Amino acid sequence: MNVKVIAFDADDTLWVNEPYFRQTEEKFCSLFSEFMPMHSIERELLKTEIANLGLYGYGIKGFVLSMVETALAVTAGQINVHAIDRILTLGKEMLNQPIELIEGVEDVLKALQGKYRLVVATKGDLLDQERKLKKSGLSQYFHHIEVMSEKDDASYLKLVKHLDIKPEELLMIGNSLKSDVIPMLHIGGHAIHVPFHITWVHEMVESQVEHHNFKSATHVGEILQYLNS
Amino acid sequence: MNVKVIAFDADDTLWVNEPYFRQTEEKFCSLFSEFMPMHSIERELLKTEIANLGLYGYGIKGFVLSMVETALAVTAGQINVHAIDRILTLGKEMLNQPIELIEGVEDVLKALQGKYRLVVATKGDLLDQERKLKKSGLSQYFHHIEVMSEKDDASYLKLVKHLDIKPEELLMIGNSLKSDVIPMLHIGGHAIHVPFHITWVHEMVESQVEHHNFKSATHVGEILQYLNS
Repeated sequence: MNVKVIAFDADDTLWVNEPYFRQTEEKFCSLFSEFMPMHSIERELLKTEIANLGLYGYGIKGFVLSMVETALAVTAGQINVHAIDRILTLGKEMLNQPIELIEGVEDVLKALQGKYRLVVATKGDLLDQERKLKKSGLSQYFHHIEVMSEKDDASYLKLVKHLDIKPEELLMIGNSLKSDVIPMLHIGGHAIHVPFHITWVHEMVESQVEHHNFKSATHVGEILQYLNS
Repeated sequence: MNVKVIAFDADDTLWVNEPYFRQTEEKFCSLFSEFMPMHSIERELLKTEIANLGLYGYGIKGFVLSMVETALAVTAGQINVHAIDRILTLGKEMLNQPIELIEGVEDVLKALQGKYRLVVATKGDLLDQERKLKKSGLSQYFHHIEVMSEKDDASYLKLVKHLDIKPEELLMIGNSLKSDVIPMLHIGGHAIHVPFHITWVHEMVESQVEHHNFKSATHVGEILQYLNS
């Protein structure tokens, strides 16, 4: 590998994220459990989120708007207004959530610092991701943060152009095969998959990945062995 | 001026934006006119927006969340659920709004193309601003778009570093003295103010600007005279 830049995904790669969405989803569903079984509400919410993804994009604000929309649908107009207030509060709590780093991440960044240009490449709300990076205490390790509206071939090609490197000089590290690995391999870059124990169903892919530019690690600390070899 | 990069603000500089917020605000206020005079609702909405700005940032999604929050407050829990549905729809209509270019913008971009590196530097929701640039048909003129969570001294210094130029090699063109002009002059860059006929009250500043790096134009077409001199 002749890698110059290492891009880290943020949510569930640098810090814990998906569990907060799950906890919020659960609290949301329980608000309306008198109207519908919880798993049906959850399915409705997912349907609404995916339908709105093109318009709202990724991130907490769009998620909150989709929760409000789902609440109106599942209660068929019988919603208690306090429940809507509660949804807005759930969203604000998510935005104010303290950062919990993934174990071992800072040691890895320390080991890589100075040897590679390190960047964060993440989807989500711009302000929210910048704020999380700041709160994480990891800003010092990164050249900058790239908040991307989508992680597909075109976006990674734009990123590579923007970083002024060749695709084969970029290594992406992340927990999502769909977003962090497959499109990166497509454009000729390198990728290491470090799975997180929970993945949003919309990020799941069925396929196994086999590629000479692809590695897998069970823990972020393991990526160092690939870079030293 | 030894300018290498010209950064254009987007909303109300390249295309019409603020009038859509005003129209939506008006529709919003009229939904609840039985509870409170329209101007009082408008004041409540502004208060809520500004209180949420640190958490939500700029852009339509945060605006919609603030409308929902304001609706709950002004109706004191007596809100009709259809009104909430209507607010979500107003937000989606804004996101789907066709782009109306500011008159003369494309001619200016054509004249500057090839002579300067042109970028878009805007606040707002990442996905929404990217989509608007695409819909505008102006993408071809710009090297890239920078969506910024804030337009202050620190963000412009980051932009300059990112563009790999000196502050005095950057010219910012925009309709907001507060966001596009004053911080840019602070960091040693150049700015041309092209006012739009409506300004969001939160973007207003009292002061007059006088600075050797500052110019004012009544119409975007006038900026060319400053660059040719």
